[in-house]
Amino acid sequence: MSELAVKAEKLDAVDELAVLRERFVLDEVVYLDGNSLGALPVSVPGRVDDVVRRQWGELRIRSWEESGWWTAPERIGDRIAPLVGAAPGQIVVGDSTSVNVFKALVAAVRMAGAGRDEIVVDATTFPTDGYIAESAARMTGCTLRPVVPAEVPGVLSGRTAAVLLNHVDYRTGRLHDLPGLTAAVHAAGAVAVWDLCHSAGALPVGLDEHGVDLAVGCTYKYLNGGPGSPAYLYVRRELQDRFDSPLPGWNSHADPFGMRSDFEPAAGALRGRVGTPDILSMLALEAALEVWEGVSIEAVRAKSLALTDFFLECVGAYAGEGRVESVTPVAHAERGSQVALRCDDAGDVMKRLIGRGVVGDFRAPDVLRFGFTPLYVGFADVERAARVLGDVTAG
Amino acid sequence: MSELAVKAEKLDAVDELAVLRERFVLDEVVYLDGNSLGALPVSVPGRVDDVVRRQWGELRIRSWEESGWWTAPERIGDRIAPLVGAAPGQIVVGDSTSVNVFKALVAAVRMAGAGRDEIVVDATTFPTDGYIAESAARMTGCTLRPVVPAEVPGVLSGRTAAVLLNHVDYRTGRLHDLPGLTAAVHAAGAVAVWDLCHSAGALPVGLDEHGVDLAVGCTYKYLNGGPGSPAYLYVRRELQDRFDSPLPGWNSHADPFGMRSDFEPAAGALRGRVGTPDILSMLALEAALEVWEGVSIEAVRAKSLALTDFFLECVGAYAGEGRVESVTPVAHAERGSQVALRCDDAGDVMKRLIGRGVVGDFRAPDVLRFGFTPLYVGFADVERAARVLGDVTAG
Repeated sequence: MSELAVKAEKLDAVDELAVLRERFVLDEVVYLDGNSLGALPVSVPGRVDDVVRRQWGELRIRSWEESGWWTAPERIGDRIAPLVGAAPGQIVVGDSTSVNVFKALVAAVRMAGAGRDEIVVDATTFPTDGYIAESAARMTGCTLRPVVPAEVPGVLSGRTAAVLLNHVDYRTGRLHDLPGLTAAVHAAGAVAVWDLCHSAGALPVGLDEHGVDLAVGCTYKYLNGGPGSPAYLYVRRELQDRFDSPLPGWNSHADPFGMRSDFEPAAGALRGRVGTPDILSMLALEAALEVWEGVSIEAVRAKSLALTDFFLECVGAYAGEGRVESVTPVAHAERGSQVALRCDDAGDVMKRLIGRGVVGDFRAPDVLRFGFTPLYVGFADVERAARVLGDVTAG
Repeated sequence: MSELAVKAEKLDAVDELAVLRERFVLDEVVYLDGNSLGALPVSVPGRVDDVVRRQWGELRIRSWEESGWWTAPERIGDRIAPLVGAAPGQIVVGDSTSVNVFKALVAAVRMAGAGRDEIVVDATTFPTDGYIAESAARMTGCTLRPVVPAEVPGVLSGRTAAVLLNHVDYRTGRLHDLPGLTAAVHAAGAVAVWDLCHSAGALPVGLDEHGVDLAVGCTYKYLNGGPGSPAYLYVRRELQDRFDSPLPGWNSHADPFGMRSDFEPAAGALRGRVGTPDILSMLALEAALEVWEGVSIEAVRAKSLALTDFFLECVGAYAGEGRVESVTPVAHAERGSQVALRCDDAGDVMKRLIGRGVVGDFRAPDVLRFGFTPLYVGFADVERAARVLGDVTAG
């Protein structure tokens, strides 16, 4: 047994979160793609079956009340809230991340008020945020200004209406300075909108603590909600009265069953709802969130950093000099829960890794991504992944 | 046995669609709320279980390709297409009806071109369409003009950009003249957008035949897709190149995995996609659509009219004079697949009906709605529902 394998064994032995792996359906594969699609929690299949067979099949229409379907968006939002540092009543679940980015950005511009006609967006963002930001700018008469996050403070001005940033970069895994950037946005009098897709469930976010205005995130990565599970929208309590949605559906009405032709927005986070909620996916997500019972996000973060530290150490030991190069920051304060390695033939290497039972993913043109979900990835997995990577990149 | 019960028995005996009832999970309840939430098709639970346990749980990320997740929106759109008279390649599934109304209306205004600054909307519409139309008007610099469908031709002008109409009124069950109104909208040079929520799956729509420009619809009523199942968007082939979506997500990009920062829309109906598709709900819908195997929508329409005719006949015989009054048109050409009865104490009456095993629904302030899904409702159900209605409204 190699020195690193021994070290992995020791780290696993003292890992207090190791028992959580039992809450997921896993096999002999080393699954390092939880930053794309989280593994299946064991609580999900039975719940979904009950939703389909009993709630839909037997109770049918009665389930909107009796099975709590109608209130699912805000109930599940409250379940996500502690994971992102939000008090209850500020998050609703529903729609895709893209649609929520649109709601948030348009509402942000409307909050910012007259004279502010510029939307600043992370130039390195996951593309959909940029496309939607462009549409939001076009539809609100704003100019879109893409800049890398580090340069955001320098471009803020009295013209800035809203700033859309990613907490963790989807490609490099870089963690951006949410408290500092939010403070800078506020100092300029603008509205801060954060995309938490790659941080929620992997590290503490502190939405309330840092005064974030609006935030969105998906639930199928570190929150393990299932393929394409509904996203969420956070609207800080103090701003909810001013949240003026571009998608005012009947579900965001103060009296949805009044069937009134005039729109009167509901109070609170419910304003972020739009149409009829997608119950099957939503209740699968609710079951998936049960894996967080008794888990502290701080402990998750500590393990996440230990996993990525150890992976970098193992890659350094196993992979040939110059063969792969990490584009993920070394500093803990700048690292999310993934490691991205640049590699000339990354597409090919990832195929071979998958063939050897190590699943990460490839992002064009030359990045290997490895996501570390602390709830179900262990240190032996990490050592094995790096060892196989060394093998497939050798020679 | 009463005369009407005998008649029901005879009608059921010659009903060629009667066998389709076996494709659904049903019990002793007379379920006349399929115009709100369709009953569970027997093909769904097993499929959903496979999607959860095997596709998500075992294949995980590989399912985006191997299980056909990525192409589900357009594949399922093509499955809905024949039911609404559309050739393949014009429908994508995803998002809620409200979100699709927004995409369609904004795109319609953009297609209509300069100088056209008015959106006409059905004044009797299901509220969400009106709220979203108001937002679309606000964000495109248009004026919103609500009028009842019959008066639409009279208000069309060179200023009309788009007209949003409901094929069947959600409250009264009135079927509007889609061919005639579409032709009138076109004669005025405007874009016709139809909401098919209450017609798709209950009667022939003929989207291609009548030259409809854009259409949206939900899938949880007569298409039995499950609670809050994803909606769909139809974009007529000739207009797809000009479909300029207000929600350009990464899923509507020509090269979604190129991760490019500039947006280049995909060709065809894919432009209607936005974010990551909601796979659990979407594949439940796909399984649900199997109930249409070998079923002609014309035969469904014929049975639907026979059911509503017979219901009106039974209500006339069983319910006391003046106690309930139909607000659904008598003329077949003006009737969808539901009957709405006005009744002073409708809320109360519906509760008692449900208590007696007859499920319809109540729409404020005074309407009892009964939806007739020809795939699983029979004539004996109709007779029983009317008889129980007679009982609970007597004395």
